Amino acid sequence: MIIVMKMGATQTEVDEVLTRLTNGGWKTHVSRGEERTIIGVIGDERKLEPGTLTQMEGVDRVMPVLRPFKLASRDFQAEDSKITINGQVIGDNKVVVMAGPCAVESLEQVLETAMAVKAAGAHLFRGGAFKPRTSPYAFQGMGEEGLKILAEARRQTGLPIVTEVMSPEQVDLVAQYADVLQIGTRNMQNYALLNAVGQTRKPVLLKRGMMSTIEELLMSAEYIMSNGNHKVILCERGIRTFEKYTRNTLDINAVPVLKELTHLPVVVDPSHATGRWTLVKSTSKAAVAAGADGLIIEVHPNPAEAVSDGEQSLKPKRFAELMVEVRRVAEAVGRTI
Amino acid sequence: MIIVMKMGATQTEVDEVLTRLTNGGWKTHVSRGEERTIIGVIGDERKLEPGTLTQMEGVDRVMPVLRPFKLASRDFQAEDSKITINGQVIGDNKVVVMAGPCAVESLEQVLETAMAVKAAGAHLFRGGAFKPRTSPYAFQGMGEEGLKILAEARRQTGLPIVTEVMSPEQVDLVAQYADVLQIGTRNMQNYALLNAVGQTRKPVLLKRGMMSTIEELLMSAEYIMSNGNHKVILCERGIRTFEKYTRNTLDINAVPVLKELTHLPVVVDPSHATGRWTLVKSTSKAAVAAGADGLIIEVHPNPAEAVSDGEQSLKPKRFAELMVEVRRVAEAVGRTI
Amino acid sequence: MIIVMKMGATQTEVDEVLTRLTNGGWKTHVSRGEERTIIGVIGDERKLEPGTLTQMEGVDRVMPVLRPFKLASRDFQAEDSKITINGQVIGDNKVVVMAGPCAVESLEQVLETAMAVKAAGAHLFRGGAFKPRTSPYAFQGMGEEGLKILAEARRQTGLPIVTEVMSPEQVDLVAQYADVLQIGTRNMQNYALLNAVGQTRKPVLLKRGMMSTIEELLMSAEYIMSNGNHKVILCERGIRTFEKYTRNTLDINAVPVLKELTHLPVVVDPSHATGRWTLVKSTSKAAVAAGADGLIIEVHPNPAEAVSDGEQSLKPKRFAELMVEVRRVAEAVGRTI
Amino acid sequence: MIIVMKMGATQTEVDEVLTRLTNGGWKTHVSRGEERTIIGVIGDERKLEPGTLTQMEGVDRVMPVLRPFKLASRDFQAEDSKITINGQVIGDNKVVVMAGPCAVESLEQVLETAMAVKAAGAHLFRGGAFKPRTSPYAFQGMGEEGLKILAEARRQTGLPIVTEVMSPEQVDLVAQYADVLQIGTRNMQNYALLNAVGQTRKPVLLKRGMMSTIEELLMSAEYIMSNGNHKVILCERGIRTFEKYTRNTLDINAVPVLKELTHLPVVVDPSHATGRWTLVKSTSKAAVAAGADGLIIEVHPNPAEAVSDGEQSLKPKRFAELMVEVRRVAEAVGRTI
Repeated sequence: MIIVMKMGATQTEVDEVLTRLTNGGWKTHVSRGEERTIIGVIGDERKLEPGTLTQMEGVDRVMPVLRPFKLASRDFQAEDSKITINGQVIGDNKVVVMAGPCAVESLEQVLETAMAVKAAGAHLFRGGAFKPRTSPYAFQGMGEEGLKILAEARRQTGLPIVTEVMSPEQVDLVAQYADVLQIGTRNMQNYALLNAVGQTRKPVLLKRGMMSTIEELLMSAEYIMSNGNHKVILCERGIRTFEKYTRNTLDINAVPVLKELTHLPVVVDPSHATGRWTLVKSTSKAAVAAGADGLIIEVHPNPAEAVSDGEQSLKPKRFAELMVEVRRVAEAVGRTI
Repeated sequence: MIIVMKMGATQTEVDEVLTRLTNGGWKTHVSRGEERTIIGVIGDERKLEPGTLTQMEGVDRVMPVLRPFKLASRDFQAEDSKITINGQVIGDNKVVVMAGPCAVESLEQVLETAMAVKAAGAHLFRGGAFKPRTSPYAFQGMGEEGLKILAEARRQTGLPIVTEVMSPEQVDLVAQYADVLQIGTRNMQNYALLNAVGQTRKPVLLKRGMMSTIEELLMSAEYIMSNGNHKVILCERGIRTFEKYTRNTLDINAVPVLKELTHLPVVVDPSHATGRWTLVKSTSKAAVAAGADGLIIEVHPNPAEAVSDGEQSLKPKRFAELMVEVRRVAEAVGRTI
Repeated sequence: MIIVMKMGATQTEVDEVLTRLTNGGWKTHVSRGEERTIIGVIGDERKLEPGTLTQMEGVDRVMPVLRPFKLASRDFQAEDSKITINGQVIGDNKVVVMAGPCAVESLEQVLETAMAVKAAGAHLFRGGAFKPRTSPYAFQGMGEEGLKILAEARRQTGLPIVTEVMSPEQVDLVAQYADVLQIGTRNMQNYALLNAVGQTRKPVLLKRGMMSTIEELLMSAEYIMSNGNHKVILCERGIRTFEKYTRNTLDINAVPVLKELTHLPVVVDPSHATGRWTLVKSTSKAAVAAGADGLIIEVHPNPAEAVSDGEQSLKPKRFAELMVEVRRVAEAVGRTI
Repeated sequence: MIIVMKMGATQTEVDEVLTRLTNGGWKTHVSRGEERTIIGVIGDERKLEPGTLTQMEGVDRVMPVLRPFKLASRDFQAEDSKITINGQVIGDNKVVVMAGPCAVESLEQVLETAMAVKAAGAHLFRGGAFKPRTSPYAFQGMGEEGLKILAEARRQTGLPIVTEVMSPEQVDLVAQYADVLQIGTRNMQNYALLNAVGQTRKPVLLKRGMMSTIEELLMSAEYIMSNGNHKVILCERGIRTFEKYTRNTLDINAVPVLKELTHLPVVVDPSHATGRWTLVKSTSKAAVAAGADGLIIEVHPNPAEAVSDGEQSLKPKRFAELMVEVRRVAEAVGRTI
């Protein structure tokens, strides 16, 4: 941590900061520049609240030096984490594709979609039984009945199931049926929920908050990991910006940034990141070209009848075309799919 | 809802949209412009998923016309809601000030602060017993012990207590001690939590998500209200923007916008909205000048020792000065404090 | 400037950075922490391109310590700048109000508005003769004819004129007629234009770019000042965020932040910052309460007939009401108007 | 254009809006819904200022239906524009790569870089002689001497030159030397400059403003085109968001969106869009996978000595590696390079 004193800060003010730090167990070094005095703090800055120093007289700014995440960091583990899900490995050379409808609507809809995405080459099946909806008047999901439908789809297709869990008390129930527990974008900083899934040993698909920084995403992963569950899959799903033409802005930069900062696998959700089905194929190819370890894509047998997110869902035929094109890009970057 | 067809959409494509709408029970009217055909939908558009129409051939865009919130809307209730909290009324002429530390740290700290803010004229006492923290390694709050300390502060000062609840299973516990249940910014769209507080009859202080639009804030209020609890206090606490000098950007526009759109009371949190104590006084005055019904302000007897948010906490003496200056502004806009 | 080395950076890598800095004339000091080595740079960091160091092996990050502006800084000049415009002083105790239509449309429109805003207590008259418009098909302003109309309004009312200049070759022409040269939000980083107005001795009203940070605003002021023209008035006019209900988000925090960082006067434009006339009165009061030195407000005798920005223009009667209410707030914060 | 009346708007208010529109030459149709009355406007809405209607009594909102750009629109021209630059064609099957240093620093630096990027397969050479810099104290470019150096590089390598023009009075000078006139991100809405380059017949590389919408980018293209110069190349170069880890956020969605909305070629600048050289290769591959027609990449023989943007410049050897990998991706999406 670096403490920048104000221009004209007095020696007494500098001394008080030094005393405060020394009493707290940190070592310090002082550098007097032409314009300002700067104090470096040696020791574990993660234990030091920057705000408490900002309040001291003569202090202008406090700048953290270390990144606040540890277990999720590449410094902590250099090699890529590989997470095994019912025989599918994510974080390895193969790009893993998860596909399925936004919401579970019926057994028929789920089976039809699951068969279709399997035939097209998808590796996992996704679908929501509990749905976070902006409006209390919108369809909220089929609940446990939906989970049973998902389990039936797994039985018939062999595809592992990814499904969302929305609150701590649902975790046990959802974990009975799901192979991967999904944390949605609005719950990325729902710490009670992060702790709850951290106490299971199920892989967790952690979606980035739509207005959360990359560092915050890694801190939320750290919450899960610090509970003992290291099987965290990070998901870039678009962030909120001033651009209005698309529902969100896919932060493609986040893919190589995350590969630099962390050993955890990174998948991309082009359906939510664009909000328009016509953009899903292009951005899926971009995600794989940028180094994503997987994709999660909304597919619906009849998007015009979907109870939610129809505008961003692909028909099975278009999903099959996407798989063909994405496969070529995967091969061009030295990966299989 | 307005459906804009693509240039060159065929009659068959238009007819299919019309059939779809008619079968769903909506009335339609068609307008053929020089460049495009436009279809208006008559009936409750809140029941119509826009996405399903976007998927139809020949459709360019779907534009909602109605606002999606009802119970929270001024159209639904024209007069201001007044919410009574242990004798304090919020939403009336008096500007209500809630003050206290970010986190409950000890009985001494809480009592010292509560006495000081009461002496300065605050109406409610705020403090966190359960703390949502970005880092799993940071102080997470004192839990129920903290709630007991808050109750003791109420006993000694008479100030009603505002404190945060972070998960559905905590609601009963927190409601035993608190006068107002606070939903934090990261939980604004934690729907399980919104439903849980909606089932109590305690006033709820709903903080705007740092990434949420005004409309989404009102939809989250709608969640609580649709569960039967109409005592919702909205809180503007700063939004996330590209500006880096301040922790957040106080969206002062949101104050008059909310007063237009809803009958619910609106308070402002200048501490989080700026993240720097030197900016709290100016922005508190701005909030009251803009029409806020209340303020929620962080005060700590010794911010340089605070376990969290020290950089934005006021010392009691500065809070007392703030109250004097804010009172003048309140009077200038025809209100008391 | 602080250079943070990567974990595991070698001594050779550290030495190469030190050599590079020493050769460039900077002094250095090295601090070896538990996890990382940190190098402090002593000397004028404004001459050091951070990017060049980021490229060196073993370097993780480079963090600037000093602010990049000088002439505009409070460190450089502690007391407030007062700028005199034809007898009106901005930056002093009196809150200065500039009012008038978005665009000059006719002599009648201008005179009618100028008389009305003068009667209501405005101190300067604003109006655009050259108009930056998003569309090439929209009205682009009356040009020199509009400037002559503005001059006639000054002759008849005595109000000094604020008007926009859009390109370097217009500066001489506009300066013949105007009392204050306005730089619009889209031109805040049009450096050729900043240099050109910097070479006049006319006061400049510099609008913050809708996409620009506070620091960038001050750097643009620095451009003008480094050309010798120190008469710069800063204008917060709303920034672009994800919020869609308002045209922009008024960054009210920027008012006290600028008062901390710079000695230059700060005015607020609530018309553009909200984009809706119904919000202008509330936000004008907020701006003055927060410490603004002035306001710039769009007024049109018949907004429903305005050629631009009608949705955010006040009728003269509403402007007069605004002045009454703003005056009360100004007095409550110890200022006149 | 759709006009949504307020709930409870009177018949008189509706009639006044209708009269206003009829008098202006528009046809109208009225639709009375359960909650609100809606008025559709038939005719060229681009001539109607929405703001003027917002001011009328009883009007709640005005929603444009048509897109405001014409010449740039795919509706206007369905087939892709192909722009020829000294034998290089952009907008065709071949992905065009422009590479070179941020700033021209010397003849040696330019020749060395130009030879290297040509050898690696680049098609155009880029370099700045006039440099827009945030600080007035930073290097501002070599000016005409820099242009001469660029011309010499073209003579020796045959690579056409892309270079920035910053103000209308520079256009003639820069056009003497350059093959493509670049408009920088800060000048995307410098309308005097857009008009000036629109009056030349040189191809223009128009960079998206860092906080401009896709629609605004197309409106700026429309400015150039409406002056008679249809040779506009659009450039996505990253937008400003809340994410701090990267300098900007590459809006990869913008690539397929622009290909839908316009016939103009689209290139991506991964250097500015990330601000970190380690991210340039991944995002270049993503851009081509998403359908970009070209790339513009910063290359410097010794980035650690660059006078600007060193942190995002590639060494020639890394650029050559990038070209190899990007070529594979281009082929995977059916293109050459």
